[in-house]
Amino acid sequence: MPLKRFLDLCRGVFFEVAIIMKEKYLSIAETLKPELLKEKISPQSRVTVSADEKSLQGWRVDTESSELFGSILETGKPVIYDFGDHYAGKLTLDLMSHGKPVDAPVKVKVTLGEMPCEVGGNLDGYQGWISATWFQEEIFHIDVIPGVFELPRRYAFRYVKFEVLCQSSNTTISLKHMICTAETSADSTQVEPLTADVPEILKQIDAVSINTLKNCMHDVFEDGPKRDRRLWLGDLRLQAIANYETFNNCDLVKRCLYLFGGLTNEEGWVSPCIFTEPVLRADDLVLYDYSLLFVSTLMDYYKASGDRETLEDLWPVAIKQLELGVARLDENNVVKDDPGLWCFIDWAMELNKQTPAHAVLIYALKSGLEMAETLDKADSARWISEWTEKTREAALTHLWDSGKKLFISGEGKNVSWHSQVWMVLAGVLPQEEAAALIQRILTTEGAVGPGTPYTFHHLIDALVTAGLKDMAKEQMIGYWGEMVNDGADCFWEVFNPFDKAFSPYGSNLLNSYCHAWSCTPSYFIRKNLI
Amino acid sequence: MPLKRFLDLCRGVFFEVAIIMKEKYLSIAETLKPELLKEKISPQSRVTVSADEKSLQGWRVDTESSELFGSILETGKPVIYDFGDHYAGKLTLDLMSHGKPVDAPVKVKVTLGEMPCEVGGNLDGYQGWISATWFQEEIFHIDVIPGVFELPRRYAFRYVKFEVLCQSSNTTISLKHMICTAETSADSTQVEPLTADVPEILKQIDAVSINTLKNCMHDVFEDGPKRDRRLWLGDLRLQAIANYETFNNCDLVKRCLYLFGGLTNEEGWVSPCIFTEPVLRADDLVLYDYSLLFVSTLMDYYKASGDRETLEDLWPVAIKQLELGVARLDENNVVKDDPGLWCFIDWAMELNKQTPAHAVLIYALKSGLEMAETLDKADSARWISEWTEKTREAALTHLWDSGKKLFISGEGKNVSWHSQVWMVLAGVLPQEEAAALIQRILTTEGAVGPGTPYTFHHLIDALVTAGLKDMAKEQMIGYWGEMVNDGADCFWEVFNPFDKAFSPYGSNLLNSYCHAWSCTPSYFIRKNLI
Repeated sequence: MPLKRFLDLCRGVFFEVAIIMKEKYLSIAETLKPELLKEKISPQSRVTVSADEKSLQGWRVDTESSELFGSILETGKPVIYDFGDHYAGKLTLDLMSHGKPVDAPVKVKVTLGEMPCEVGGNLDGYQGWISATWFQEEIFHIDVIPGVFELPRRYAFRYVKFEVLCQSSNTTISLKHMICTAETSADSTQVEPLTADVPEILKQIDAVSINTLKNCMHDVFEDGPKRDRRLWLGDLRLQAIANYETFNNCDLVKRCLYLFGGLTNEEGWVSPCIFTEPVLRADDLVLYDYSLLFVSTLMDYYKASGDRETLEDLWPVAIKQLELGVARLDENNVVKDDPGLWCFIDWAMELNKQTPAHAVLIYALKSGLEMAETLDKADSARWISEWTEKTREAALTHLWDSGKKLFISGEGKNVSWHSQVWMVLAGVLPQEEAAALIQRILTTEGAVGPGTPYTFHHLIDALVTAGLKDMAKEQMIGYWGEMVNDGADCFWEVFNPFDKAFSPYGSNLLNSYCHAWSCTPSYFIRKNLI
Repeated sequence: MPLKRFLDLCRGVFFEVAIIMKEKYLSIAETLKPELLKEKISPQSRVTVSADEKSLQGWRVDTESSELFGSILETGKPVIYDFGDHYAGKLTLDLMSHGKPVDAPVKVKVTLGEMPCEVGGNLDGYQGWISATWFQEEIFHIDVIPGVFELPRRYAFRYVKFEVLCQSSNTTISLKHMICTAETSADSTQVEPLTADVPEILKQIDAVSINTLKNCMHDVFEDGPKRDRRLWLGDLRLQAIANYETFNNCDLVKRCLYLFGGLTNEEGWVSPCIFTEPVLRADDLVLYDYSLLFVSTLMDYYKASGDRETLEDLWPVAIKQLELGVARLDENNVVKDDPGLWCFIDWAMELNKQTPAHAVLIYALKSGLEMAETLDKADSARWISEWTEKTREAALTHLWDSGKKLFISGEGKNVSWHSQVWMVLAGVLPQEEAAALIQRILTTEGAVGPGTPYTFHHLIDALVTAGLKDMAKEQMIGYWGEMVNDGADCFWEVFNPFDKAFSPYGSNLLNSYCHAWSCTPSYFIRKNLI
């Protein structure tokens, strides 16, 4: 048999095995699809939302009336309801008519907001790059009144603005009721109460973290129930560790791991993001860091669940990420600073991602080593061990600026919190040096700082890793505690304490105010890391 | 027993009997609820609709492409589909995505039109008195693409305009298909073909009449599938006579008669209009002429169906309308010209309705007399007979202007086609005089003319009654034939041959272009009356 033919055959067999494996993964994921828990919630008050510079994000909320329902709805005069907390779910309107029968459809606008800005403001003139379709505003013609009208989509909201846009002059209607049917796959009865000695502010932060996580748990772990409502690996990793300490829904993590395992691309990369509707499909994007963090997410799962079968099952996917990760090293064993190498790390325009990406590789290799040892994969353990050492050395040789005593990144020698934070998490330095490094970057002027709670999480984790527990607590209270003091019922996707109306999208009406990657304070608090 | 107590008891018994009767009527109606026949229809072409003074109503339709589907839908660039005929039903969109997964909801606008004006124009600045919510335009956020999206409401349309209002910059979608699921309770297989000797123009008028009737037949006979989608007595009477000659769905007429019978008001009046959703309910309005025409509609039904049981059942309702009608006569036995007496007759601002109302009473009394005789109700027959004579005499004494040789109406001596037409239909004059009268009014300058096809129907009927068959045919071809020549696929609610964009509502986008009361040419043609 000619060599080419033999190789082609081998390749065919390989692909077939890969397809069979993927099908197996996806069928396991399917069996783990959760039943959603539903709860019916009524609004707590009718409010007004008015522009006010002194209020959070420029919007003041006042209780308008304790009488929720029954007033006649006048055309063009919206009413706003406050459900008192954040929910993800369906909305049902119960409408009454008075006097003559309703003789024409009634056209209504329903605006659902996680925050007052969404029901106070509008997107007129919006020119940002993210799709305005995430704004939760709908227009309906309702044919049958009196009657119950269920909005067909799922929303994330605390506030609901209801406005009659047009109705027949014979029509007189009112709201009899409005019900949110909240949905989640998180079982709140599984959450242990915190002990009495936990400080009040941490208790509050913990409660809001749990609410955030709960409202992101559906069919899969979603990044945010308002936007993008999808399974992202970076978010999953953080949700999972918070989940183990709270709802402990290990099956949902397992389901997500199998989904990622079953939807790798042709090269074998785990996708950063999975679409579950209309059919399971991976985003065609690859994010270097997210793919590598699959390894850590799987190992975290094993540690929390003890589920060795899943670890064994998904080991080939994990080791493949490491192999692909290592293949991206240059001749100095440093991750190439390649514009074609997409990597998330953080939303931060000035950030060069080479060094943090390199650190993530080392971090993932370490998880991989633990995994290989657990599974008695001696050859793989040796291979990983060697590459961990090589990449650690390369980091210290090529990415460390001995003058600045900081890790730098890329040709432009970019200085960022991210590089230091991830190198600390990767364990490149002994703990004392790590502690000095992390304290140094916090006071380095001009360094690129965190853009999102995702990086704040890693900062807290790095501080804990470096033994700086008090500083970790201080940072957490400074950041998440500030949101709590601002009245947050969930933690936001983006929070800039110095510009609370900040949005990376061009309008804070499109920000997600319940976002998975912000839910980790419960992990630190409940693991007694803080 | 004191007299008052006795009378109270009688009254109680009477009310109880009335309630039991009504319940019986409504339960019979319920058993006659039809199963809708459904048919899936694809669009025939993609078209452009552009403003053009020379085209019907100012809108020109051109075929844009023979390729219906597959082109990428660009934001803000609508596509218009022509289904080639008028349908009442649901619309389903089958959407495809290309390239990257659809990563944000897609916001679309769907505008459904019976006529090109509805998809060419818009309601901006509309200030008319009828609710703008009848305009069939919807905005949706579609979450799942590729996928099938069914619009939740029923529409009446031939044209569908589809426009992407907003989508993510990563999104590339197209329409894979668009399906109308047409609904009707009319069974087309029941319609006999016309014989070959029927002139082509009458065949065409007949076909459009049948299409009109078909698209108005649903759960009940509706006045129009776009607007108001309700059961009106005046429309039912005309639909029923066209139906007997075509689909011959006697059960649907029976159902509607029982609904009217079961929903009379406290005084006993049959309501002009019934709402079937969310619960059966009569409009609280009373229209003198419509209530009286219940008698004729019931008698027509008996003649077409031979269903004596229904005639017996509903006789008390019919005789009650005549009693109530007669109670509205003044000391001269003329229907009072009372502003509190609502009467439809026609949409015509300058029309005084006293005389036409009086004629409708006589017309209904005559139907009542036939009914009483059929049912061997000798006392009632005598009573009706007496009142027919009294009211006929009163008409000739008090409503006839011997100078003008016309019937006049009200204090202002209003001269209208309506008065003459209804007096002819009421048989007040011998046939020869009737023929002279109807010809006279057609050439009387300044007389109030027909506002709607409803009155045109009665004109044709009056011409036939007066033995003027040729003139009836000429009038029908002049009016309905003109619509056919204009390309109508259904007959309109309002048609002014001299101002085809006319609307009584302030915008012809709100006119109903498939309207029950316009469907009667089939009755005249198939009954060989013309």
